[in-house]
Amino acid sequence: MERIVTTEVEEHIGERIRLQGWLHNLRRLGGIAFAVLRDGWGEVQIVVESEALATLDGAEAKLESLVEVVGRPRREAQAPNGIEIGEATFRVIEAIREPLPVSIHKATLTASLPTLLDHAVTANRQPARRAIFRLAAGVMAAFRTTLNQHGFTEIQTPKLVASATEGGANVFALDYFGGTAYLAQSPQFYKQIMVGLFERVYEVGPVFRAEPHDTTRHSNEYVSLDVEMGFIDDHTTVMALLCELLHAIFAHLAAQFSRELALLAVDLPTVPAQIPQLHFAEAQQLILARHGVDVRGEPDLSPQDERWLGAWAQEEYGSDFLFVTGYPMVKRPFYTHPQPSDPRYSNSFDLLFRGTEMVTGGQRLHRYPDYLAALAAAGLPTAPFESYLEAFRYGMPPHGGFAIGLERLLMQLTGASNLRLVTLFPRDQSRLSP
Amino acid sequence: MERIVTTEVEEHIGERIRLQGWLHNLRRLGGIAFAVLRDGWGEVQIVVESEALATLDGAEAKLESLVEVVGRPRREAQAPNGIEIGEATFRVIEAIREPLPVSIHKATLTASLPTLLDHAVTANRQPARRAIFRLAAGVMAAFRTTLNQHGFTEIQTPKLVASATEGGANVFALDYFGGTAYLAQSPQFYKQIMVGLFERVYEVGPVFRAEPHDTTRHSNEYVSLDVEMGFIDDHTTVMALLCELLHAIFAHLAAQFSRELALLAVDLPTVPAQIPQLHFAEAQQLILARHGVDVRGEPDLSPQDERWLGAWAQEEYGSDFLFVTGYPMVKRPFYTHPQPSDPRYSNSFDLLFRGTEMVTGGQRLHRYPDYLAALAAAGLPTAPFESYLEAFRYGMPPHGGFAIGLERLLMQLTGASNLRLVTLFPRDQSRLSP
Repeated sequence: MERIVTTEVEEHIGERIRLQGWLHNLRRLGGIAFAVLRDGWGEVQIVVESEALATLDGAEAKLESLVEVVGRPRREAQAPNGIEIGEATFRVIEAIREPLPVSIHKATLTASLPTLLDHAVTANRQPARRAIFRLAAGVMAAFRTTLNQHGFTEIQTPKLVASATEGGANVFALDYFGGTAYLAQSPQFYKQIMVGLFERVYEVGPVFRAEPHDTTRHSNEYVSLDVEMGFIDDHTTVMALLCELLHAIFAHLAAQFSRELALLAVDLPTVPAQIPQLHFAEAQQLILARHGVDVRGEPDLSPQDERWLGAWAQEEYGSDFLFVTGYPMVKRPFYTHPQPSDPRYSNSFDLLFRGTEMVTGGQRLHRYPDYLAALAAAGLPTAPFESYLEAFRYGMPPHGGFAIGLERLLMQLTGASNLRLVTLFPRDQSRLSP
Repeated sequence: MERIVTTEVEEHIGERIRLQGWLHNLRRLGGIAFAVLRDGWGEVQIVVESEALATLDGAEAKLESLVEVVGRPRREAQAPNGIEIGEATFRVIEAIREPLPVSIHKATLTASLPTLLDHAVTANRQPARRAIFRLAAGVMAAFRTTLNQHGFTEIQTPKLVASATEGGANVFALDYFGGTAYLAQSPQFYKQIMVGLFERVYEVGPVFRAEPHDTTRHSNEYVSLDVEMGFIDDHTTVMALLCELLHAIFAHLAAQFSRELALLAVDLPTVPAQIPQLHFAEAQQLILARHGVDVRGEPDLSPQDERWLGAWAQEEYGSDFLFVTGYPMVKRPFYTHPQPSDPRYSNSFDLLFRGTEMVTGGQRLHRYPDYLAALAAAGLPTAPFESYLEAFRYGMPPHGGFAIGLERLLMQLTGASNLRLVTLFPRDQSRLSP
């Protein structure tokens, strides 16, 4: 009898089936017991009669033991998902005899955050945690599918780079055959260069930030969903694509991941046909008007500012999303395209999702002389940028793009209190393992 | 008039169309000229009458200038792809006035390898080079699609790790907030751990090898297509999946990338329904019998051995592929599952593609006591492996997987003489840029 998986059980009501997986739970109620078998895709309840129980007990098979079950599925309103397996016999494939460091058979994990992270290897087997990472896969899949439909080409660019090019001290350095290499803080330069080949490119991959801060929404390594496209009008072309992409991502999750969304009690956000937008200067005015706090003159928005603005978008437009455009040039990287009507501001944007920055993007400079001027203005030498500049020296169209932080998206989507809770194996100042 | 792209021109024969892109070539023949416009997807020939030529000349627009063309496509047997644009007017969007460091408008690049790599930013715009990286995207897409259909979940695992776990000195180290981090040589440990969540996982991402050798088929950073699956019989379960995956990849390239394959004069390989296989010991016997070279007793195959075996598979089975199984345990990593019938050998395999190793895989150990024994036998302490071991301590099914080297695949597929030629921005001992 061929093995089937838990998500296929419903198609086999009344038939004899064979399942394999982990003994996820076992509750004894007198002479009878209820087991839950977990496999790579889901869980199913099994009624364990005394003989089957004797098999488990004889092998001293505790939770997370690997078992095979042969039985007959039937509808049972009381059972999770309305199905249970009866007439079950067990075979213990591998008996686990010691208790798990973190108990994972309950709907909610009770372990402290450090314990949970220390034991992520097993704690992530918990169905609700697993659902988070299944959603992550869904986000990546929808991202790629949508962009492929728009003529984008996937790229994989190097993570070992010659200079800490994007500026700042927040870059990891390593010995590279006697010289020094740096870990890419983003694929920014490469994705721009690649506009010269394919016009429209995207990359899903790790980025590395040596930032020493310890917050609930930062990480030293995370997954960035990067997009760059050429022949744009300005940053609004890119914002329109992002809006479409978000629609596609949430539609895909709704269609393919209903079980995971239900398990996590996630309300999928509303993406309005037109995401509301505010210019940076307007945003600061709004904060003054609504909250009496004068942040005008500040070159950036604080997390508190972002929360206020997110709440405003919710109240005013019923939108979980808000574009803030026109961030001051002084806080944006040298390759940022200024706002033509007022060059103190830029053709850039952040997308706030439920009051937290989830996407950063904008139009970039594309003319070679503009790059030389921007580097000079920033007091940066041109030599480390020679290869990057080669792209602009030999013809680059107006272009722009954005980067979505995968874990930021998951954090806001699931309402997690900490980015580490939606990262498979998070990296922070004090954590490199597991 | 909306812009269309070069690959859409054929649908608009006889209509007025607008194109934008790079001035890829310009040949003058007396008063008339032929231009080639290149955009992100392809090229098209344009007949340039004297007035249009005056526009280009007036702007001093040399190759790689950004131009807009309005004209009328027509069938013309002499033109590349059988189409040319007539009645063309030009608008110069951005004029480039200096010659490219590497001439890219010819079918073949004449620059030396170092020059080509130094100027990869522009050299990769050449259509044949661009085709290579388009194929790379196609390989990744087919890999993911096929695995998704088989119930696999995509993962992204950390590249910053706590210890140089897979052994050897071939690992990059970096300062990590006063401690030391290492760059992952592969996602091996994490993909195994993730079998405990999803049973079937894959990852596409960078791997880092600090190997100091300088060969035509190695790189210090490359893209690895990693697969791992649980509840297997042994390594042959994994080999069957790999075989199916290769079928799907080449079928996808044939269906979607005919233009790229033609441009690169690539003959897609034959993947037999059953890829021929040889045990390691048989392979050494065969080399002795056919070539009179006695490599028995050697713990691994040399590149020459692999070429000989590849030639044999071609002659004997007409196959571009050959599985070599059962590599000696002594040369395989500690987590390798031994061959039950003779534990000097292992349940592992390499897949040779046209005589070069392209995939390595096998069955892994899955029982906790086996790991403790394997680490002890290898003289390794258990402490650095604590998190990894947690997966096996709490129930792991028989599992195995493999890793496909993306650039290796592209190298053999295109017949490139050097891995660097099929890598977007290669990394070697002396190259970190562009």
